[in-house]
Amino acid sequence: MNEAFAQLKATFLKELPAINAAIAREIDALPKLVRPVAAHVMDAGGKRLRPMLTLLFARALDFRGDNLQTLASSLEFLHSATLMHDDILDNADLRRGKPAAHTIYGITPTVLAGDVLLALANEIVARTDNPALTSCISKAIMQTATGEIMEIAAIRKAHITRAEYIEIITGKTAYLIQSACEFGVIAAGGSERARTGAKTFGLNLGIAFQLVDDALDYTSRADTSGKPLGGDLREGKFTLPLLLYLESLPADQRAITTRELTDVNLHPVRQDQIVADVVGQGFAEKTRDEAKSYLTLASQALAVLPECLEKKLLGAMIEFVLTRDK
Amino acid sequence: MNEAFAQLKATFLKELPAINAAIAREIDALPKLVRPVAAHVMDAGGKRLRPMLTLLFARALDFRGDNLQTLASSLEFLHSATLMHDDILDNADLRRGKPAAHTIYGITPTVLAGDVLLALANEIVARTDNPALTSCISKAIMQTATGEIMEIAAIRKAHITRAEYIEIITGKTAYLIQSACEFGVIAAGGSERARTGAKTFGLNLGIAFQLVDDALDYTSRADTSGKPLGGDLREGKFTLPLLLYLESLPADQRAITTRELTDVNLHPVRQDQIVADVVGQGFAEKTRDEAKSYLTLASQALAVLPECLEKKLLGAMIEFVLTRDK
Repeated sequence: MNEAFAQLKATFLKELPAINAAIAREIDALPKLVRPVAAHVMDAGGKRLRPMLTLLFARALDFRGDNLQTLASSLEFLHSATLMHDDILDNADLRRGKPAAHTIYGITPTVLAGDVLLALANEIVARTDNPALTSCISKAIMQTATGEIMEIAAIRKAHITRAEYIEIITGKTAYLIQSACEFGVIAAGGSERARTGAKTFGLNLGIAFQLVDDALDYTSRADTSGKPLGGDLREGKFTLPLLLYLESLPADQRAITTRELTDVNLHPVRQDQIVADVVGQGFAEKTRDEAKSYLTLASQALAVLPECLEKKLLGAMIEFVLTRDK
Repeated sequence: MNEAFAQLKATFLKELPAINAAIAREIDALPKLVRPVAAHVMDAGGKRLRPMLTLLFARALDFRGDNLQTLASSLEFLHSATLMHDDILDNADLRRGKPAAHTIYGITPTVLAGDVLLALANEIVARTDNPALTSCISKAIMQTATGEIMEIAAIRKAHITRAEYIEIITGKTAYLIQSACEFGVIAAGGSERARTGAKTFGLNLGIAFQLVDDALDYTSRADTSGKPLGGDLREGKFTLPLLLYLESLPADQRAITTRELTDVNLHPVRQDQIVADVVGQGFAEKTRDEAKSYLTLASQALAVLPECLEKKLLGAMIEFVLTRDK
């Protein structure tokens, strides 16, 4: 582990209590009935990647003000709201190794608690009276919801192209991470140039983050990630490792395997075999390589920031995204 | 039908095409995949009560500007988003006499399309760069979602008080109607006094609207409202007609009937009998009487407006809410 990476880990540890305290304050102010569901989801130990990005960009641009943690937490609430609705969609039993909210509280309270967290994210931003932040979060909500709908529509659709796959992950994951970076610049009153740089950094970091996530789905054991191995394939999702594997097959074999994968009744043993082939032939690793090219773009975008500790930490964030194993 | 009421009907007919055109423009700009679900819900022929309230308040205060219909439509999108999530909750098959969205498109696409409509409402308001509007809609989203959660939590809970019932309907219905009125004043740049008056009007109109809705649930045939008679009772909801009926019973009988009503397996024939008692003993009518007292407050609040056609039409709106039969 190099020095910047160690510093980033130390920064996460140092900042987490204040971020979590801001989150807890907002949860405590929610109506009594929503608190248990909201607290369950927010306590589930996310990495708080999005709030951290807001903090780092704001500080890199000499943010002077208070309550930055609360603003930074808004996109974490939005992120959690989408996870709650998403787990219902995926019919997922686990989230970060803990039971998904809807398996404990039922679908309806989870849908509505997701709505409340979304409303809370929105309200925190509205409190700032800053139209640039309002505009940013309203677009982020729209793009994230759109990305998720595209993802559902693509389930068991074998004709999905690599470009469509990138469009889906950009929508469902990258725009929110882009917005977290943009939030920091807007809060600090940074220049248009800094804002464009932050957006480019966040968008590419977000795409890479999801690419690595989709690679981990094939390689990371359930006891680490809390999810079954090859879960995406079993749910009919054609993510990049699988798309690359299919591209590598001779045309006749590709047609047969593709047909198998669109069949909701494909035997689990055959599913296991394809998962093993995808990993064994290095397509999870090739997906990480693809992430690298986006991370290069993210790294270049950091040039808009002045030399400072936070810039170094954002550089280390790139390494974190690439090397994480859960 | 008096003259003002006739004028209100004529105004609805005259304004509807422009409101519906603004709604259609926004739907057409949504991502292709969301459009069918969104269009299904938005085409289902709502009364467009909320956009109309925004228009009337803005014009009463000499609104000068364009695109008022688009702003006015934002709360209709928010309203529809809550209906979509709500119908999943109620497991409702029909909405305004047509199949509920989730029965055609499935739960997940409906949850996500609801998210998109909520995001759209938000985004339309963000476009105005007006923090007062942003703050207003963000609170409306929060209060509406909270009211719905309170409503679920109260299902088959016999100990609900009349005050709690009013709190629920204020949250789930009245705040959004209040916001529609407030939107008009803010858009027109009206005074603080006008804004307070508009809020008081909207809040009380909204509470009365829901009281009449809950009375209609006991008296309006399915072929008129699109819902089964006494549906609220069957779903375990203690609305005012039922609360008044229970209050009228001797203590021992009240205890027995209350216990029956909290039983999810209560026989439909016994349900029919209680519905008939509630109506036969005049408690739907008494609920309408209760609505009248809120409408009196709404009527008084109109004093903040200058004498004008719109003020007269808002007065007629009060009559519409009280006398509607579907």
